[in-house]
Amino acid sequence: MQPLNKNIHAVILAGGTGTRFWPLSRERSPKQMLKIFGEDTMIRQTIKRICGLVSEQNISIVTNERLAFDLNLHLEGIKRRKDDFKIIAESIGRNTAPAIGLAAVYLKKNNPDSIMVVLSSDHSIGNEKAFIDVLKKAIKSAEKGNLVTLGVKPVRPETGYGYIKAGVRNQKSGIRKVEKFTEKPDIKTAQRYLESGNYFWNSGIFVWKVSAILGEIKKYMPLLYSGLLKIEKALATKNERKIIEEVYSELESQSIDYGVLEKSNKVMVAPADIGWCDVGSWTALDDVLPHDDNGNIIKGNVVDIASKDSIIFSSDRLVATIGLKNMVIVDTPDATLVCEKHRAQDVKKIVDELKRRGKEEHLIHKTVERPWGAYTVLECGDRYKIKRLAIKPGGRLSMQLHRHRSEHWVVVSGTARVTKDTEVYDVHPNESTYIPMSTKHRLENIGKVLLQIIEVQNGEYLGEDDIERIDDDYNR
Amino acid sequence: MQPLNKNIHAVILAGGTGTRFWPLSRERSPKQMLKIFGEDTMIRQTIKRICGLVSEQNISIVTNERLAFDLNLHLEGIKRRKDDFKIIAESIGRNTAPAIGLAAVYLKKNNPDSIMVVLSSDHSIGNEKAFIDVLKKAIKSAEKGNLVTLGVKPVRPETGYGYIKAGVRNQKSGIRKVEKFTEKPDIKTAQRYLESGNYFWNSGIFVWKVSAILGEIKKYMPLLYSGLLKIEKALATKNERKIIEEVYSELESQSIDYGVLEKSNKVMVAPADIGWCDVGSWTALDDVLPHDDNGNIIKGNVVDIASKDSIIFSSDRLVATIGLKNMVIVDTPDATLVCEKHRAQDVKKIVDELKRRGKEEHLIHKTVERPWGAYTVLECGDRYKIKRLAIKPGGRLSMQLHRHRSEHWVVVSGTARVTKDTEVYDVHPNESTYIPMSTKHRLENIGKVLLQIIEVQNGEYLGEDDIERIDDDYNR
Repeated sequence: MQPLNKNIHAVILAGGTGTRFWPLSRERSPKQMLKIFGEDTMIRQTIKRICGLVSEQNISIVTNERLAFDLNLHLEGIKRRKDDFKIIAESIGRNTAPAIGLAAVYLKKNNPDSIMVVLSSDHSIGNEKAFIDVLKKAIKSAEKGNLVTLGVKPVRPETGYGYIKAGVRNQKSGIRKVEKFTEKPDIKTAQRYLESGNYFWNSGIFVWKVSAILGEIKKYMPLLYSGLLKIEKALATKNERKIIEEVYSELESQSIDYGVLEKSNKVMVAPADIGWCDVGSWTALDDVLPHDDNGNIIKGNVVDIASKDSIIFSSDRLVATIGLKNMVIVDTPDATLVCEKHRAQDVKKIVDELKRRGKEEHLIHKTVERPWGAYTVLECGDRYKIKRLAIKPGGRLSMQLHRHRSEHWVVVSGTARVTKDTEVYDVHPNESTYIPMSTKHRLENIGKVLLQIIEVQNGEYLGEDDIERIDDDYNR
Repeated sequence: MQPLNKNIHAVILAGGTGTRFWPLSRERSPKQMLKIFGEDTMIRQTIKRICGLVSEQNISIVTNERLAFDLNLHLEGIKRRKDDFKIIAESIGRNTAPAIGLAAVYLKKNNPDSIMVVLSSDHSIGNEKAFIDVLKKAIKSAEKGNLVTLGVKPVRPETGYGYIKAGVRNQKSGIRKVEKFTEKPDIKTAQRYLESGNYFWNSGIFVWKVSAILGEIKKYMPLLYSGLLKIEKALATKNERKIIEEVYSELESQSIDYGVLEKSNKVMVAPADIGWCDVGSWTALDDVLPHDDNGNIIKGNVVDIASKDSIIFSSDRLVATIGLKNMVIVDTPDATLVCEKHRAQDVKKIVDELKRRGKEEHLIHKTVERPWGAYTVLECGDRYKIKRLAIKPGGRLSMQLHRHRSEHWVVVSGTARVTKDTEVYDVHPNESTYIPMSTKHRLENIGKVLLQIIEVQNGEYLGEDDIERIDDDYNR
């Protein structure tokens, strides 16, 4: 195998907000962190896919501050070295131009000759070999100073995507000059594009030298560029986070396509027949998952009679369906979606409505991942709350105390090491212990199997924010 | 007010199996015990409705042995005297002819001059005054030895009901001779019936003298009659239950309509304009509940966008619906139904399939009523189970022990009096106690407010049948 080119870096954009795959996605568990397709989550699949071309230490992930901690935790399991997968955190999301610019100044600092491969964290790629092959061609073109975008050959007159019109073709590489970018077309125009053979879907996958993209940002987005210069100076200083926040607070939301690519004359398109799908809504599953004989995609605890062309996902509870046609049903422990397929884009409106009503179902799942494992809320009542805590072997919660609640712990599997004030003792399955209010305590799995604890909280206020951390392995 | 006629008895048939309103109905919580319409359950509404005509002590309810205990419990709250609402238990359901015959021999024993008003426990009656008025007329006719059935004036060409063709009309009472009963018609025939004005829906509400119906059973169903004679002899002896079981094991399923009414020449129909609906499936709700501007019936925690003509019920979890048309969605804590309206009859098939798979979701809800209150299963895991127990003031569980599980109890509201072997002690909110395996124990609410306990069970076997009852207030 060829050694990996040290100059090549992957930048994965992972700031998605988790609205379009609600209720499976949540603000704190967006699409890129879901296992909708196959074995692993989309962002982990994205990383694995690019590892043949880029070393793990050359992979950066751009996300927002809110998600950064959870995302880092999410990638723990596939890290081989401590410095694999750098997380670059934006203070707020401002679309792709600032995200790419920010990543570029980070890369430039370490290696001004870097070539950036910009990827989305939540796209599906059916043909991974073809994907790597086309990226290699794109890299060659990028080395000459071009901005290269991967163009996907249309297979239907899709009106939901932007298109790229391709011009002159390099005979050897097949890469073509871009004549123009076009907005989402109407169905007649899309049909014409499809038939012409010179139009490609804009995949959002880009390859360019850091110096080239920064040069074009300077030319076409001078305000962004001057902000990036400020950030560049602050990198690795104690002001870094503060300056990023200051700069971002003044930036406008802008896509790299609109801000740079539509204006630059250095843009090339690499035709890519890679089984690409951006999985933009529940109905996109029809493009990427297999169907049963009735055209359904059915997963989980489902009993169906005579449904057709429907997507039915259940997590654990029983979902019974009869005679559906072109429907999407998604069941989770705290929320169920029932939607006509052609209205799948409106899921976003449901999420907006939940925010407006101040509900939590748009934000988090009943089960919340933590660095030490996970907890699941089983029931909230008047002055009590019941949780199941699952603590991985070696996992340790922070030393903490609560001002408004006491906690009863019953161990149902594994062995818990409990610190209560100055005492340290072990609690085994079918044993329990009690932590009074305002008492310092800590919980640790010192064993080899999962520690599971049923926690019954009593108190006048039971919010997650009633926690004073005295010491924490995870620096929270 | 007129004193109630002591000879008049109501017999309420309540053997329904809870399939057609699944998942809200379950085998152990059938339709008659649900509050689908308004304030109270259907059987309690049935009882209240008839109380203007019949004294509580003259009301009998025929059900099967499996349901008898729960039904009795269910009616506790509306009893004024200990002997209100006699429960007559069949060993197994054998359709209406045996149920009515059995009730008749019970009534005959106490009062051979009894007049039976036979009611269903799960019908909706919109106009209660008209209902009582027509029953009074029917009673007058029954006193002359007639078998009177209430006939509902059709308002649409319904193909799901049986029809009665009416003949000669009594000028004073409006009651008419029955010419014939007909099976469920096709749509063309139903249209003709509707237009003729001489056809009525067979409501399943009957009035007759005990002696009259037994006489006709003797004539047209001699096998049933000889079985009833055996039961009659055994009534109030120690053999009563055994003989009922023996007789029922040899009876065929038969409706009173087919077995007697279609053959007898004593049958009269009392035209009844009483807002009757048999509420035979989810779609029947469209006849009895109010709709919003889009033709929907929506109850519970629902966020909807642009649905039309749909029935959407949620208990507690969030249900989000988009763009539905003519759908039925029913969400419960452990199961969700999503069904096209015109397939609502197929809900029965789902229940059959669940039985076949050995699932529990057709049988019971997560919350199970008990004489002392209720329990809710919050989670079942490997070797552990979590329940919330809610014990009414004055409620006391049996003295019991378990061979395969120990129990941790955390009190979250109220005060628990706990008996553990020979110890008796009180446990208050935010306190806990532990019951080891094979230890006699009892739980009692000695306070004035609801006692709520979180129970964490540990053990190798956690079935409800691991219980040895040493003493029980409720004779279980």
